[in-house]
Amino acid sequence: MIYLDNAATSFPKPDSVYDEMQKCMKEYGANPGRGGHAMSIRASMEVMRVRESLGSFFNIKNPMQICFTKNATEALNIGICGFLKDGDHVITTSMEHNSVIRPIKTLERDRGIEISIIPCNDFGEIDVNDIKKQIKTNTKLIISTFSSNVNGIVMPVTEIGNLARENGLVFLLDASQGAGSFEIDVEKMRIDIMAFPGHKGLMGPQGTGGLYINEELSLLPVLYGGTGSHSEIIYQPEMMPDKMESGTLNTPGIIGLGAGIDYIKSIGIGNVKKKKYELVERLHTGIEELKGIKLYSKNSIDMNSGIVAMNFDDIDSTEISYVLDKVYGIATRAGLHCSLLAHQTFGTVKSGIVRFSVGIFNTNDEIDATINALKEISTSA
Amino acid sequence: MIYLDNAATSFPKPDSVYDEMQKCMKEYGANPGRGGHAMSIRASMEVMRVRESLGSFFNIKNPMQICFTKNATEALNIGICGFLKDGDHVITTSMEHNSVIRPIKTLERDRGIEISIIPCNDFGEIDVNDIKKQIKTNTKLIISTFSSNVNGIVMPVTEIGNLARENGLVFLLDASQGAGSFEIDVEKMRIDIMAFPGHKGLMGPQGTGGLYINEELSLLPVLYGGTGSHSEIIYQPEMMPDKMESGTLNTPGIIGLGAGIDYIKSIGIGNVKKKKYELVERLHTGIEELKGIKLYSKNSIDMNSGIVAMNFDDIDSTEISYVLDKVYGIATRAGLHCSLLAHQTFGTVKSGIVRFSVGIFNTNDEIDATINALKEISTSA
Repeated sequence: MIYLDNAATSFPKPDSVYDEMQKCMKEYGANPGRGGHAMSIRASMEVMRVRESLGSFFNIKNPMQICFTKNATEALNIGICGFLKDGDHVITTSMEHNSVIRPIKTLERDRGIEISIIPCNDFGEIDVNDIKKQIKTNTKLIISTFSSNVNGIVMPVTEIGNLARENGLVFLLDASQGAGSFEIDVEKMRIDIMAFPGHKGLMGPQGTGGLYINEELSLLPVLYGGTGSHSEIIYQPEMMPDKMESGTLNTPGIIGLGAGIDYIKSIGIGNVKKKKYELVERLHTGIEELKGIKLYSKNSIDMNSGIVAMNFDDIDSTEISYVLDKVYGIATRAGLHCSLLAHQTFGTVKSGIVRFSVGIFNTNDEIDATINALKEISTSA
Repeated sequence: MIYLDNAATSFPKPDSVYDEMQKCMKEYGANPGRGGHAMSIRASMEVMRVRESLGSFFNIKNPMQICFTKNATEALNIGICGFLKDGDHVITTSMEHNSVIRPIKTLERDRGIEISIIPCNDFGEIDVNDIKKQIKTNTKLIISTFSSNVNGIVMPVTEIGNLARENGLVFLLDASQGAGSFEIDVEKMRIDIMAFPGHKGLMGPQGTGGLYINEELSLLPVLYGGTGSHSEIIYQPEMMPDKMESGTLNTPGIIGLGAGIDYIKSIGIGNVKKKKYELVERLHTGIEELKGIKLYSKNSIDMNSGIVAMNFDDIDSTEISYVLDKVYGIATRAGLHCSLLAHQTFGTVKSGIVRFSVGIFNTNDEIDATINALKEISTSA
């Protein structure tokens, strides 16, 4: 099988991810932060090591401002629902995933939050001036994805961060696409809140993710419960990261995430970016002349996080994906990718889009086989 | 090391748990419910198989009413915050964990929820008539733990369920302690909502848990986002379990949980209960005559989910646990166990309690070594 669905979940993982998770479960599978015994302390220390590793990876000065979540969606819910107050205004883009759109639309409906969604051009690119024009007195938050999960377009993150800082607004970045292959520096990019998944570009297992919160901010939790700390108080403790980490953590998952990050650090994030782009470029150039093809992604190393998004005229995306899977053993994702607004931007709400998302373990041969498959489909259509 | 902290997390897991998780990650590590390709479909089907297995385990007729969560705490937050409306009255017990107490205290503070907390006797036992007396016109919910995480006392679950049903109230069970070693039947016990962790008695990995919701109830989600379904609507879909499962699931964790449940089914839940009680009884009888000992747990197969809770006069629980760990290599948990109210019941808020929680892989020899260690500590104190 040729796996080109890495924007959903990267596959396979580095061997060290599997190995470290097994080791964790077999050697120190206790509850971190919940007991004073040796195995629990070891679990706590190993979790702390991953927190610190994430800190250095994203240039987060205080790793205690990173809390672990089950996925980026949970992190986004904390960032959005924990920050916004009734009547606040939030600005975001038309390239956001439902993990941003559904929380803010729910807050709009239930708590009077105002939303401005900035339209993007045909490639999903945004003009930061369009964001600027929407700022008003009750604007509190700007939310942007690092990169679209539909076509991989990279947003002008630093510009948005600067705009937010200059206007006293908080900037929340959804790093679901891009973290692990593009350098993300929360200081340089002036990111105040950042949600990231563990199981995509960071090469960890499913069931992991995290949230960074600037030390100057105090957000409400989304989940309340036991934190292993301050058991003597019946309200949630204010201390980070405990405030946002109620209940038992996914220790083996976090350890796997740590191994994933170590792997990326070992080969160098610049090399990951380069490798992914080589695959994207090869696929792009191999199919751009095909009859009836429509490409929605950019062939650019700095503007594409690793996705080729395409359709053939008059064929539903699910049909193409189905044939790619059944006949050629190529795994892609069709449909709307949980991103209705992006598909409204591309005019593909009805057809969906066929998404090929590459990963560091894909090979040129796999890309060539994919090109050949698409050639055959194109000529037989 | 002798691991007696199974009420925090069971350790070790059956080998099949490690093996099935590896197999999942290496063979079908795609995103369930997010793509039409073979690997994604396989992941979806395997997750569905675990949902069905949980359904048969708890006698839940429609497994789609079970949603997977990262732990019992997340499940409890959905059950509590998703059900209660402003001004509702909830009745609960003084044996609840902070994963119940902190959410309801927060709702009391922020949303005008009224709370009645029913006191328990010296062993943490509750009189169902005391619950009945608190029912008033705005009472909507009764919450009870299956069993205390501090001393293992088992609550009169069926009686509480019947009381709730007779009075038109919803009954939420926290099955964190007991699920996996006591038979829990949502129909017989008239349970409307049930939260359970995957990583304790069900022998799955950390990062797993779930929530059952009676089909007749409609709760609000706690997290909003992509569900892989109904991407064409910008609000959360109403369909269960998707409504409560935003973002990527912890597929390998869920598969591990499935293997854990299969293991329990294979040896029989009655045998698990018996095995755990034999260990509890051995430890209880071995230490009950020690000088200065105070026991807080009941030596009863039907009234104890697998915990021996004790203190020595005038010694802080953390000191005992520390010595047990450092000198004897015995892992226990001291302190307040995230359950302030239970410790208020026992009068142990200052000292904490030393908790020994057994698991199916503990042996008689381990219990005997623990008894000997406590004898030595007792005589040297």
